[in-house]
Amino acid sequence: MTESEIREKVKSALKEKRFQHVEGVVETADRLARKYGVNPEQARLAAWIHDYCKEWSEEKLVQVAKELGIDDSYFEVTELLHGHIAAEIAPQEFGIVDPEVRNACRYHTSGRANMTLLEKVVYLADAIEPGRDYPAVEDIRKVAEEDLDKAVALSMDNTIEFLLKRRLPIFPLSVVARNDLWRKQKDSRGR
Amino acid sequence: MTESEIREKVKSALKEKRFQHVEGVVETADRLARKYGVNPEQARLAAWIHDYCKEWSEEKLVQVAKELGIDDSYFEVTELLHGHIAAEIAPQEFGIVDPEVRNACRYHTSGRANMTLLEKVVYLADAIEPGRDYPAVEDIRKVAEEDLDKAVALSMDNTIEFLLKRRLPIFPLSVVARNDLWRKQKDSRGR
Repeated sequence: MTESEIREKVKSALKEKRFQHVEGVVETADRLARKYGVNPEQARLAAWIHDYCKEWSEEKLVQVAKELGIDDSYFEVTELLHGHIAAEIAPQEFGIVDPEVRNACRYHTSGRANMTLLEKVVYLADAIEPGRDYPAVEDIRKVAEEDLDKAVALSMDNTIEFLLKRRLPIFPLSVVARNDLWRKQKDSRGR
Repeated sequence: MTESEIREKVKSALKEKRFQHVEGVVETADRLARKYGVNPEQARLAAWIHDYCKEWSEEKLVQVAKELGIDDSYFEVTELLHGHIAAEIAPQEFGIVDPEVRNACRYHTSGRANMTLLEKVVYLADAIEPGRDYPAVEDIRKVAEEDLDKAVALSMDNTIEFLLKRRLPIFPLSVVARNDLWRKQKDSRGR
């Protein structure tokens, strides 16, 4: 499937506003990829498909996740399922078999420890694309121009704080991921 | 070993101020135990030993943890090791073999999913004993008189927020624990 065909298929699966978000993520992921030495084609592909299943009902997400054998630990926080499912079905839906692209889609909501540069670029693009508007976004956008790891860590901490204040489930994978990133920040400052 | 002998052995291992904290935790754990239908003797024992290894150096904690075969996942957050080590050495140091008491000691810093009432009582007593002084403590003390689970969840969220603001490692076990407690709070309100 060509990128243009992928774009059309994604467009037909999403509401107009969410598709605009996806286009923003593609554009931002492309730019960040070039800036940080990541393959922009991989970044664009992961960005196109990252929210392909975002408008499914919770029931459908949980049912399909079970059918696909996705790790039970994600079921508790259903917000994480759409990325995992899109990554699982990417080969048959879009002909995307590249495991790096699929992992960037899979971990775009939670992150994880030892993220690849591609995973960080897609995670961050999702958080700061031009349509995003939340109190910390300008700070994170600024840091994104200077330090990819720090921007990803700040974005994760912003999400954790949001969930904490609302007493919503916090993604344990994100906590492991941000611990990893802040520890590396500290280690690199210590050198 | 009698409780009085345990007290003396703990006293000789700690600085005066920390021993006063331990005495506060024992007193508070005893009171909360009676309030919430937990065996007060188990609560007192876990409270007496919970900080027995708290003044060890980080090097000693990591070395002994390795010798004892404590799960590697705790090494990253060395703040968690003192409770696990005290639980491991409780049989030979204090003649305490009760696995429930040892788990209340083991998880007193992080908590975990599906905590027992005893584990919650000791966790909370550590957070609100009379010597504790931090912005949220009065709120948590108030809730502790009415709702054990909610007080534990509030205390965990307070710790996570503290670590988040300082960019320090957050304990993944605490996140799993507070997700579990808030989900149960939500479920019980929904009934």
